[in-house]
Amino acid sequence: MRAELVAVGDELLLGDVVNGNAAWLGRLLTDAGVEVTRATVVPDDVATIADAVRSAADRADAVIVTGGLGPTPDDLTREALAAAAGVALRRDAGLEEALARRYAEVGRPLLAVARRQADVPSGALPVPNETGSAPGLRLALGRTVVYALPGVPVEMRVMARRYVLPDLRERFAEMSPPATRLVRVALVPEPVVATTVEPLVAGRDGVRVVYLASPGEVTVRLSGADAVVVADVAEDVLAALGPAAVGVGDERLDVVVHRLLAETQATVAVAESLTGGLVAAALTDMPGASATFRGSVTAYATALKTDLLGVDAGLLAASDAVHPDVAAAMAAGVRDRLGATYGVATTGVAGPEPQDGRPVGTVYVAVAGPEGVTAASRRGPGDRAVVRRLAVVHALDLLRRQLLGVPPYDEAEHAGEPDRTVATDG
Amino acid sequence: MRAELVAVGDELLLGDVVNGNAAWLGRLLTDAGVEVTRATVVPDDVATIADAVRSAADRADAVIVTGGLGPTPDDLTREALAAAAGVALRRDAGLEEALARRYAEVGRPLLAVARRQADVPSGALPVPNETGSAPGLRLALGRTVVYALPGVPVEMRVMARRYVLPDLRERFAEMSPPATRLVRVALVPEPVVATTVEPLVAGRDGVRVVYLASPGEVTVRLSGADAVVVADVAEDVLAALGPAAVGVGDERLDVVVHRLLAETQATVAVAESLTGGLVAAALTDMPGASATFRGSVTAYATALKTDLLGVDAGLLAASDAVHPDVAAAMAAGVRDRLGATYGVATTGVAGPEPQDGRPVGTVYVAVAGPEGVTAASRRGPGDRAVVRRLAVVHALDLLRRQLLGVPPYDEAEHAGEPDRTVATDG
Repeated sequence: MRAELVAVGDELLLGDVVNGNAAWLGRLLTDAGVEVTRATVVPDDVATIADAVRSAADRADAVIVTGGLGPTPDDLTREALAAAAGVALRRDAGLEEALARRYAEVGRPLLAVARRQADVPSGALPVPNETGSAPGLRLALGRTVVYALPGVPVEMRVMARRYVLPDLRERFAEMSPPATRLVRVALVPEPVVATTVEPLVAGRDGVRVVYLASPGEVTVRLSGADAVVVADVAEDVLAALGPAAVGVGDERLDVVVHRLLAETQATVAVAESLTGGLVAAALTDMPGASATFRGSVTAYATALKTDLLGVDAGLLAASDAVHPDVAAAMAAGVRDRLGATYGVATTGVAGPEPQDGRPVGTVYVAVAGPEGVTAASRRGPGDRAVVRRLAVVHALDLLRRQLLGVPPYDEAEHAGEPDRTVATDG
Repeated sequence: MRAELVAVGDELLLGDVVNGNAAWLGRLLTDAGVEVTRATVVPDDVATIADAVRSAADRADAVIVTGGLGPTPDDLTREALAAAAGVALRRDAGLEEALARRYAEVGRPLLAVARRQADVPSGALPVPNETGSAPGLRLALGRTVVYALPGVPVEMRVMARRYVLPDLRERFAEMSPPATRLVRVALVPEPVVATTVEPLVAGRDGVRVVYLASPGEVTVRLSGADAVVVADVAEDVLAALGPAAVGVGDERLDVVVHRLLAETQATVAVAESLTGGLVAAALTDMPGASATFRGSVTAYATALKTDLLGVDAGLLAASDAVHPDVAAAMAAGVRDRLGATYGVATTGVAGPEPQDGRPVGTVYVAVAGPEGVTAASRRGPGDRAVVRRLAVVHALDLLRRQLLGVPPYDEAEHAGEPDRTVATDG
C-alpha cells in the first residue's frame, strides 16, 4: 500500500511557507501502515498540477493532493484534477447551497468567485469540510484513488483524520501499522547517541532507527513490523542510555520535570539571565503547570540580581555576572524568595559578543534544593538562539537529574566507541 | 531560468523532519531571480533518487539535490547521481586525504564506511563543505547543471550561498532578482489585511502579493520586476495599514520595540502570568537587549503577584488573578520595583480549562509608563500555545503603540470591506 503526496501552491516554492502538511501527512500515513513513497510540490498551474497528479497515480495506490481548493483565482486544483481525469467540471447544486448557507452565517455574500468552490470534476465525490468553506474531493484515476484537501492545516488535518484515513482503511484491508517507540535523550550529542544505539539495532531484523536532533536533545525513533521486537530494542536502548534517557513517547524534558515535581508535591522557581524567560516559558508550557511552577525572575540588569535574588554584590563585583557561583547564588536566592522546593538558575553569554572576557556559548546552570546547590557548566558553538536553547535544556536536565537522585550529565557518561560514530550528514 | 529541488531522505517522508531546506532554498533562489518550478522528496533508494533527478533535469535548467551524502549506508545520493548520469563512481584521493585530516582533527579514525564520502561520479566536481565532513557534488545531466548538497541545514546553507549561487550567476547571466518588500502587521486578522491590501495591488501590473500569517501577526510580501512600482505599492500599503504596520523588511515587532526604547534611552521590565516568560524571552531575543531590558517577574502563583509585584491582595481577592485591573497593577508594580521606564504585564487564561469562570483565550495586557497605565483585552480561539503567543504579540504591540503615541489596537481600526475578504484556503 503506497501513497504519494502532491502539495499545490506558489508560496511553498517561493519559500514563504514550509510544507508542514507533507510531514504531518507522512506521519499520519506511516503510523497507519501506509508507505509514503514520494512528495511533490508544484506551482499554481493547471498543467503542472495535472501532470504531477497523473505521474503520482501511475506509481502509487493512493494520492493525496493538498492546496488549491480555495475561492481565489489562483486556486486551480479542481481544474487540474478534471484535466488529469479527462473530464469536465460541473457545479454541484448541493455544495453551492451549503456554501451560501455558510457564508450567510458569517454575514458575507457568496460572490461568483467563491461559487467555484462548488465545482466538482465529473465522477468525483465531495469530501466534507467541517472547519472551513472549501470542500475536498475524491476521485479515481485508473486503479488509484486521489483525494484533494485544502492547504489550510487545521482543515486538512480534520479531513484527513475523519475521512481519508477511514476511506483508505476500507479500501486497503491489509494496512498494518508498524510498531513505533520514541526514546528522548538530553545533552548527549547525536553521534554519541547513534554510536550507543546502532549496535543494539544491528542484530534485530526489521527494526528501523531514525535520529531527530534539536539543540541539546535527540529523539531516537524505533519502528518495525514486530511490536515485541521493537519494544525489546527500546528497552535495550533505555538501559544503554541510562539516566540520559529522559522519557519515551510524548515525555518531553519539560513534561518529565513537571511530572517528577508533581509526584512529590514539590515546586520550582526560576532565576534567569541569558535565557531571559525561556526556562520559565518551558515550565509553563503544559496544562496544570500552576501545580508545580511558582514563578520566575529574569535579572538581566546586574543590579537586579542583588535586588530581586539576593546575590551578594561583592560576588558580582569580583566575578562579573557570568560565573558558576553567581548561578548558584541565583538558584538559592530564587528558591528562598519565591518559596519553592527547588530553584533553577541560568547565566552565560548568548552572544553575539563575548562578555567580560568569556566567550559566546559559555553557560552556567544551577539547581538549589533541600540538599544544597548543584552547578554545571558547558561551552559550545551556536548562534544566540542555539546557545539560549541549549542553556534551557541544560538547566531543566540538571533539575531532572536532581529529582531522580542521579549526578549531573557528564560527557564521559557516554563516551561511545569513536570508531562507530555516525555523522549526521543526511 | 528554472530550477527544481530534490530532497532525499526517508525521515522526510516518514514525517519525522519537515523539509525546511526546500523552503529555505526556494527563498534563496527566488530572491536571486531563479524560478523554482517543482520540489520533490524521495526515499533513500538509488533508483527512485536517480529517476527523480533525471525527470527534474529534463524539465529545468538547474537541479539542487539535498541529503544522502553522509557516511552511513543509507546515504545513497552519490550512487544515484552516478546512475542518473550513466557513469561509475571513483574515489577522489584529494577528498580522501581531506577527510582523513578532518577526522584526525577531532580525534577520530577515518573508517572505510566514512571513506565513501570521497566517492565522486566520473565527470563530477566536488563542492567544498567548510562546516561538515561530506563534500557536495556538481555535475552535468545533458544541458542541466545538478548540485548535490548535504541535508544538514547549516552545511547546506553555507554551500548554497558560497558556491551554488555564484556558480548559477556565472552560468545564467540573465538572472534578474525581483524587487521585494515585506510589510509586517500586528493584531489585524489576515482576511482584513488582505482586504486592505488587495485593492492597492489590483491596479499595479506585475506586482505579486503573498500573506504569511502566524498567531497575531501577518507579513505582507510584495514582489515584482519593477523595483519602483513595488516600493510605491509598499508605501500605499503602509499608509493604508497606518499604525498596525509594525515595520518593513527584518523589523519584527520585538526588534521595533527594542529600537524605539533604545532611541529614547528608555528601559522596560515585564510582569507575566499566562505567558510565563515568553514576553521577556522575546525582548531578550536580539543582540544588545541588555541596553533596553531590565528584567522580568513571572508571578504564576497568585501570592507572588503581591509579594514580588506589590499587587494589592484585596484586589486579587475581589477580582481573581485574571482581570484588567490586575494586569494594570502588575505593570505598574514591575515598572516600580525593577526601576524601568515602562512596565508590561500579561494575565489571562491559556487553557485547556477555564479559570474563575473566565473562558480559555481571555487575555489582559497592560503597559505602565511615565504618563500612566494603559490596559487592553482580547478573547479569541486557539490552543494553549496560540493563546500564549497571541498574548505576547498583544503586550508588545501595546508597548509599541505607547512608544509611538498612538492608541491601542482596536478591531474597528481596519474593519475592511466584507465583500472583498479573501479566504485563506490555499
